[in-house]
Amino acid sequence: MPDQKKSSDKIWKILRELYERKIPFNKVLGLKIESLKVEEVRVKFEMKDAFVGNYVHGILHGGVISAVLDTTGGLTASLGVLQKMAGQTPEKFGKSLTKIGTIDLRIDYLRPGKGNYFVATGAIMRAGRRVSVTRMELYNDQDVLIAVGTGTYIVG
Amino acid sequence: MPDQKKSSDKIWKILRELYERKIPFNKVLGLKIESLKVEEVRVKFEMKDAFVGNYVHGILHGGVISAVLDTTGGLTASLGVLQKMAGQTPEKFGKSLTKIGTIDLRIDYLRPGKGNYFVATGAIMRAGRRVSVTRMELYNDQDVLIAVGTGTYIVG
Amino acid sequence: MPDQKKSSDKIWKILRELYERKIPFNKVLGLKIESLKVEEVRVKFEMKDAFVGNYVHGILHGGVISAVLDTTGGLTASLGVLQKMAGQTPEKFGKSLTKIGTIDLRIDYLRPGKGNYFVATGAIMRAGRRVSVTRMELYNDQDVLIAVGTGTYIVG
Amino acid sequence: MPDQKKSSDKIWKILRELYERKIPFNKVLGLKIESLKVEEVRVKFEMKDAFVGNYVHGILHGGVISAVLDTTGGLTASLGVLQKMAGQTPEKFGKSLTKIGTIDLRIDYLRPGKGNYFVATGAIMRAGRRVSVTRMELYNDQDVLIAVGTGTYIVG
Repeated sequence: MPDQKKSSDKIWKILRELYERKIPFNKVLGLKIESLKVEEVRVKFEMKDAFVGNYVHGILHGGVISAVLDTTGGLTASLGVLQKMAGQTPEKFGKSLTKIGTIDLRIDYLRPGKGNYFVATGAIMRAGRRVSVTRMELYNDQDVLIAVGTGTYIVG
Repeated sequence: MPDQKKSSDKIWKILRELYERKIPFNKVLGLKIESLKVEEVRVKFEMKDAFVGNYVHGILHGGVISAVLDTTGGLTASLGVLQKMAGQTPEKFGKSLTKIGTIDLRIDYLRPGKGNYFVATGAIMRAGRRVSVTRMELYNDQDVLIAVGTGTYIVG
Repeated sequence: MPDQKKSSDKIWKILRELYERKIPFNKVLGLKIESLKVEEVRVKFEMKDAFVGNYVHGILHGGVISAVLDTTGGLTASLGVLQKMAGQTPEKFGKSLTKIGTIDLRIDYLRPGKGNYFVATGAIMRAGRRVSVTRMELYNDQDVLIAVGTGTYIVG
Repeated sequence: MPDQKKSSDKIWKILRELYERKIPFNKVLGLKIESLKVEEVRVKFEMKDAFVGNYVHGILHGGVISAVLDTTGGLTASLGVLQKMAGQTPEKFGKSLTKIGTIDLRIDYLRPGKGNYFVATGAIMRAGRRVSVTRMELYNDQDVLIAVGTGTYIVG
């Protein structure tokens, strides 16, 4: 149905616009949404000199890693909200997005973050009415698992 | 003893130089070490438009919070290493600093991060030979507790 | 006012009865509430052979530690609910207690759990309408800090 | 080679004996190792009245869940140590087992723990020389995901 497709396109636009352009710190991180499906959330960012933590080895700062994984978790939780709101207007969905916030976050730093670019993925563990839980993973450009995380988000 | 004082001054210089200037992402965050004593680690940073997460309310991005608390935890763990290395040369201490890395991190986001500047504090829970555990807290300029964290660091 | 005091006594009775006797696994752990004030939540349990993890050194099993700290965190969150429900009947309070559940938990094992008895304390970091966050600590009978924890609880 | 096979059998015996029988609290939990391969660590336990947390609904106490997941994580970390010690005698392996301890643990409680029995699985995220990181999952007898966890263990 043309109206539903227009609605759906509008929602993807809202999400992409929000996460890539409207959230200032996401712009600093240079985040780009590569895939936005419930079964596959992927976010990519390029390495920059400004992101270095260990300057001797040119390794990603742990804070960049936690920021990207937290944002990816929030984006994944948003998709869970979207699923529950199937049929709602894009405007209503956009409004509920503003209510999503991180309650807590755990990051495990497994290997040094070396690479030209990195990809973060997210998966929903539990999509509740009030609270969602997601798991996230960060890979470098050689598909090496750099870090993993778990996030708890308030969604309603 | 003059030599010990010169050594001690040299060590504070090494730590400050490292955390404020040599680590690129710390410069992006604008971190400034206010206090560097075992019983009082304090790090301050000013709010910037680039640090915003929720642009509607002008609130700190969760990624800035996790980055600052992780860095403060690492700095706190460094002091634990310093204590154990009393008597060692500044060069040896500087070298051991490069071995410190975050194993894992938990951040709890308690209240929206609104303020002109923020202060992060750290305290050592356990200073081991190989692993240290620290607790961190983030306050805004009204002394409101914005977030807390716990970090586990490899130190040897 | 006599009615308020009877109400208050009734509420403490409800909490103590629930946590010490009605929750079967708390009975297995032998938990005893020592103090039940917002500014001081204390729970005590005696060491038992059945609680040993490392049989070589007679040290507390990590699972006993996490169980006790989680329960103490839930109890602490309950007090936060109680504060918000000042004036409500004990029955209404008892009913809201059944809604409290752990969302997630972090435990840091700092030192071996050796002792004849142990005391767990809890403090509220944030008492929200829907979600509460608490910090917990476990000491042995020599006041040595054995473990710390942070818990996120759904409270409404 | 017969000697290697006898060695291998001896090692499985050591692990099973340790985790099911020698660790008192594991006996209280009634843990049974179902599978002990690096690619598949599975631990099972039966529901008991003593394990109830919410007596209204007959649901598993969160402390039982954290205890089982922590133990499963430690068992998984042990296998990582075993891999690195290929060729060592069972006695040497047994000795290194005593050095494994939990540094920290995160548990996410996703759904109420209802069932006749439960199965916990573990997977290694990182098997280091000093520190290992594992992810764990708990399913009920209907294959519903009840809880997940991440554990950091000192292994050397």
